[in-house]
Amino acid sequence: METAYFNGKFLPKNEIAISPDDRGFLFADGVYEVVRWYEGFFYDMSSHVTRLKRSLRELRINWAEADLFPSIAADLVKLNMLENQPAMVYLQVTRGAARRTHFFPQPEVAPTVYACAWGFVPESQSKESGIKVMLKEDIRWSRCDIKSVALLANTMSFQEAFENGLKECIFVRNGLITEGSHSNIFLIIDGTLYTHQESNHVLSGVTRKNILRIAQKSGINIREEAVQENRIRFIKEAFITNTSAEVTPVTELGGNTLGDGIPGPVTRLIRDKYDAEIKALKG
Amino acid sequence: METAYFNGKFLPKNEIAISPDDRGFLFADGVYEVVRWYEGFFYDMSSHVTRLKRSLRELRINWAEADLFPSIAADLVKLNMLENQPAMVYLQVTRGAARRTHFFPQPEVAPTVYACAWGFVPESQSKESGIKVMLKEDIRWSRCDIKSVALLANTMSFQEAFENGLKECIFVRNGLITEGSHSNIFLIIDGTLYTHQESNHVLSGVTRKNILRIAQKSGINIREEAVQENRIRFIKEAFITNTSAEVTPVTELGGNTLGDGIPGPVTRLIRDKYDAEIKALKG
Repeated sequence: METAYFNGKFLPKNEIAISPDDRGFLFADGVYEVVRWYEGFFYDMSSHVTRLKRSLRELRINWAEADLFPSIAADLVKLNMLENQPAMVYLQVTRGAARRTHFFPQPEVAPTVYACAWGFVPESQSKESGIKVMLKEDIRWSRCDIKSVALLANTMSFQEAFENGLKECIFVRNGLITEGSHSNIFLIIDGTLYTHQESNHVLSGVTRKNILRIAQKSGINIREEAVQENRIRFIKEAFITNTSAEVTPVTELGGNTLGDGIPGPVTRLIRDKYDAEIKALKG
Repeated sequence: METAYFNGKFLPKNEIAISPDDRGFLFADGVYEVVRWYEGFFYDMSSHVTRLKRSLRELRINWAEADLFPSIAADLVKLNMLENQPAMVYLQVTRGAARRTHFFPQPEVAPTVYACAWGFVPESQSKESGIKVMLKEDIRWSRCDIKSVALLANTMSFQEAFENGLKECIFVRNGLITEGSHSNIFLIIDGTLYTHQESNHVLSGVTRKNILRIAQKSGINIREEAVQENRIRFIKEAFITNTSAEVTPVTELGGNTLGDGIPGPVTRLIRDKYDAEIKALKG
């Protein structure tokens, strides 16, 4: 039986009961994080904790024990016997359970804290050969910088991509390419690596940040600035990043084949350097 | 003990356990309705059922028993002994519980259906004297026509109004006044009644629709069109509508006193006609 974490306790997952008054259930009033376990360590856990604290602060959810996330995550890996395989740990913190009101509960209630872990098989084929992705108007809210569970627009958009045989939905807002439904996107034009600047329209991805560091160290010219959708014909390479997919090349964007339709040299360089960094950490 | 409805059964509310895998909890992947009980009947229940079905259809959530909502609601009123007082019934339907994936569960799972009821005291003071409301940039998504539980932006915005001593947050998008965090808004300029046209930026309120009918019958000139925020000085009266607040006059909008700062004649006429309609239905 899968073991999960709920408000301070480790329990069989099927014993966990979320209250129907939980504001996560009623209002999407909560945040989450997902970290990746690499058979021995979590990659850049400290950035996930920092981002979690920022999300909580932006929503003014007071979970004083956010620094416990690394130990909760480690315990879940152990309790579920996932130490020796690729795994993900998911953490969600909501404002808690209270009578339904649009304003925050008065007096304040304890937040709901839930976490679980699962093993998974990395999509090595996608990482190797690349994926085709959809382009679609961004219908999400204007605070995509908060990693909230208000993900309905993301799931609706991803589902549309999925049904069209595409592996991600990349959003366009005001004519600018922003990010994916659950990834950041990098674009290569004239040898320069572009990705949307940090803003209220994109999530500040942990992998995004590490890729920028790796690209810089590799001497690649970087511009943290949005690319206009109408410049798509100039995009020679692209890749998406996130915690589970790491660096995944994109060979087709919104029906447009990029470059030769295979992962390009800048993409491969960055992907391989990221993989090498993980390998070195494994020791 | 409060009795609620959960997946076909009436249960003590505290026995209801939402799964942590519920897509309502993880992704805000669900819809809701709230209906008002008037000591003997639900007002315009059929419009709520119609809207519920539309919301479900837009999200492709298959709850075949949507037509049961009226009987579930009536049973909840009875079981909670609310027959002889003002009450609200809340219904939420999510896509159900499944392993967390951005795409919809495959195979499809049964939706989660939850409903509860509570008695309440109508805010007669606000209806009589009017309220002051905030004006704020609309940070919500672009499918406000779907009555989904992805309400984080609504709660954040309403909380800001609440902390400023204001009774609602009215949104402005692209310079146009759209609606409130949980109400529609009507504005009166030169004797004409304006409200934002049905679109993806506003919810098609049941009370909104009935107010338009009442205003038309009263010979009031109506324009279903958005008013620009910069025309605020021309707005002489305003009121918000929703199922619980019915018609509530607005005397101050974004710091601007409207007309004489008291509920104006068009507002009072419409409010009183709505109240008279309810009274007639009570028989």
